Amino acid sequence: MTELAKSLSGKFIVIDGPDGSGKSTQLRLLAQWLRGGGAEVFETRDPGGTPIGEKIREILLDNACAEMTVGCEIMLYMASRTQLMGELIAPALQRGACVLCDRWVSSTIAYQVAGGAERDDVLRAYEVALRDVWPDLTVILDLPADKGLQRAGRLDGHDRMESKGIEFHRCVRDIFLTQAREHANSFLVVDAEGD
Amino acid sequence: MTELAKSLSGKFIVIDGPDGSGKSTQLRLLAQWLRGGGAEVFETRDPGGTPIGEKIREILLDNACAEMTVGCEIMLYMASRTQLMGELIAPALQRGACVLCDRWVSSTIAYQVAGGAERDDVLRAYEVALRDVWPDLTVILDLPADKGLQRAGRLDGHDRMESKGIEFHRCVRDIFLTQAREHANSFLVVDAEGD
Repeated sequence: MTELAKSLSGKFIVIDGPDGSGKSTQLRLLAQWLRGGGAEVFETRDPGGTPIGEKIREILLDNACAEMTVGCEIMLYMASRTQLMGELIAPALQRGACVLCDRWVSSTIAYQVAGGAERDDVLRAYEVALRDVWPDLTVILDLPADKGLQRAGRLDGHDRMESKGIEFHRCVRDIFLTQAREHANSFLVVDAEGD
Repeated sequence: MTELAKSLSGKFIVIDGPDGSGKSTQLRLLAQWLRGGGAEVFETRDPGGTPIGEKIREILLDNACAEMTVGCEIMLYMASRTQLMGELIAPALQRGACVLCDRWVSSTIAYQVAGGAERDDVLRAYEVALRDVWPDLTVILDLPADKGLQRAGRLDGHDRMESKGIEFHRCVRDIFLTQAREHANSFLVVDAEGD
């Protein structure tokens, strides 16, 4: 095993950022690269990742659920997240795997606070649901909101989150970058504007 | 309108208790009686009550989801509950209706704490999700655990909650009664053992 692969054993790494920033692709490439170095890698996504979490994800991304309150959103994200932690992430970390997760609480802080939630409420809900388990590293793939939306629209069509306006997505980007500034030792911002 | 119907205008009343205690029947009878007195009554149930909440309810009661963590359960109950409050209960109370709800947080405290959750975690999650909105009155329909299970089995078959053992359901009953003792001014215990 390479030194890097060894150093990431038992580490919980989140890839996060705006829609269309290329999270899934970068996560796959990073996983391949770490596996090439001999690491055990467990890839997952939030919300989702477990059978229960995927059902919760369906509710969250359903366009028919446009009237969902922001409080309900926060609780559903935390429900999926604590299930994923208990069922899959914690056991994977315990056996020494490097866990790579597409989104985590950094997304709830960005999107739900941009949608009107209090940041403190998100953090309090996280503390109840996840205790003191935080990612070792959160990588934010950063790009301007209009470019992200362009790419996301081209790739996926529009789900409930992506159908909000450009101002909302600018606010989301700002909150991602603010989190990275405030927790500089556990966040890394990567420019994702290039192709 | 009768004086009683008037006095319950804008009040939030929960009917709660163990499985098989007759909550649905008593709720329907109470609603009829209040309507007969001229009151506007809004009947609902928790979890559920809204389109989003009913989807969450399906996940919660699904026998295939037996591996759900207690933290996930708490968050799902709160998600359904805050959606129900924002979308239907708060507007109904505001227009002066009397709201009758089948179960509320008293059930989460009883069942999830019996299932291993910390009571404080349930209360902290409730505070984030529901703020300071509490029922004006919670009526606990009380009966021994074995009788409740007998009746519930006869009526509904078994969902995920009902399939737990008798000791669990005894513990649930105890926690319902403890809540009623601790909040004597907003709880009422009614003997539900008779036919």
